[in-house]
Amino acid sequence: MSRAEATKARILQAAAAEFAAHGIAGARVDRIALAANANKNLLYIHFQNKQRLFEAVFDAEVATGLGRVPFTADDLPGYAVRLFDYYREHPNVLRLATWQRLEIGDDGAEPAGASEVHAAKIAELAAAQADGRIATRIPPTALLTIILAVAAAWAPVGTGAIPHAAATGQDPAVSREAVAEAIRVLITG
Amino acid sequence: MSRAEATKARILQAAAAEFAAHGIAGARVDRIALAANANKNLLYIHFQNKQRLFEAVFDAEVATGLGRVPFTADDLPGYAVRLFDYYREHPNVLRLATWQRLEIGDDGAEPAGASEVHAAKIAELAAAQADGRIATRIPPTALLTIILAVAAAWAPVGTGAIPHAAATGQDPAVSREAVAEAIRVLITG
Repeated sequence: MSRAEATKARILQAAAAEFAAHGIAGARVDRIALAANANKNLLYIHFQNKQRLFEAVFDAEVATGLGRVPFTADDLPGYAVRLFDYYREHPNVLRLATWQRLEIGDDGAEPAGASEVHAAKIAELAAAQADGRIATRIPPTALLTIILAVAAAWAPVGTGAIPHAAATGQDPAVSREAVAEAIRVLITG
Repeated sequence: MSRAEATKARILQAAAAEFAAHGIAGARVDRIALAANANKNLLYIHFQNKQRLFEAVFDAEVATGLGRVPFTADDLPGYAVRLFDYYREHPNVLRLATWQRLEIGDDGAEPAGASEVHAAKIAELAAAQADGRIATRIPPTALLTIILAVAAAWAPVGTGAIPHAAATGQDPAVSREAVAEAIRVLITG
């Protein structure tokens, strides 16, 4: 790795932590440069501005990471559980995705390639329904939406997240099996 | 309504819009006072500080609102659909709840009463499973988590939200029926 590449990698890593903690508006380029031990001017040379830097972090941490979780319509409970595990192992991923939705959302451009990635999964689900490999009771787009929501439900920023005191004793292994079982039931004819 | 009560109500309304748009750190008390046509000192007299003002907004918009959505273990698909409708009709509710999770989350106090509200629902689900009124394949806490996540999946900040281009043509009536059908299948023995 060249020196410039190493600096870029350090900036991206520091920026991921800063954006995950404080969001886009709340992130401070000064703090990122300091944490990355990088010159602030160099940061602007590599990434132009804070918005562009967030996009680079989003691509590296969210889009690339989630894209590596293997998807197949023939093992949807497995896909949901792999996503569940991924969110647990990478707690910043959903935080970054959620800041993106809150602060950019409909106003901004969608993350690059996101639509195509989802469209490909929806097409696979439709084909699996047409072949009778999975049940047809939920249309493909809705089915993908539900799978993504259930896999993310237990994350601290997930919309299913239940206050701690009520959820006391929730064993991650039990939650994980509930994810698999829920998806299994939905797709079984 | 007294003049003081009318001022408080205007401040709460303006604060809800400001917090929903910008979050807690991003909200500006100056803008809230201006939008509410209220003196900034009066705002501090009524609500102490920005954090307390957010808590008052959260109680009024999120906790009270969601608490009014009728819950019964004997009609869980109906509950999920009512939540789905509520989120569509009140787009600020999930935005406020999501800012709360991102900016306060584990670090801060839970919203007042949240644990008790959820614990009561979990107890109802457990009783319905013990009676054989609903299937037992998903433990009660996990079942509530999944119901909440599926109901919120389509909201713009929901973790199931799919980029627009991929979701083109998603009819809200189809999504709504998918929510009901998914929950129906999960609880049918």
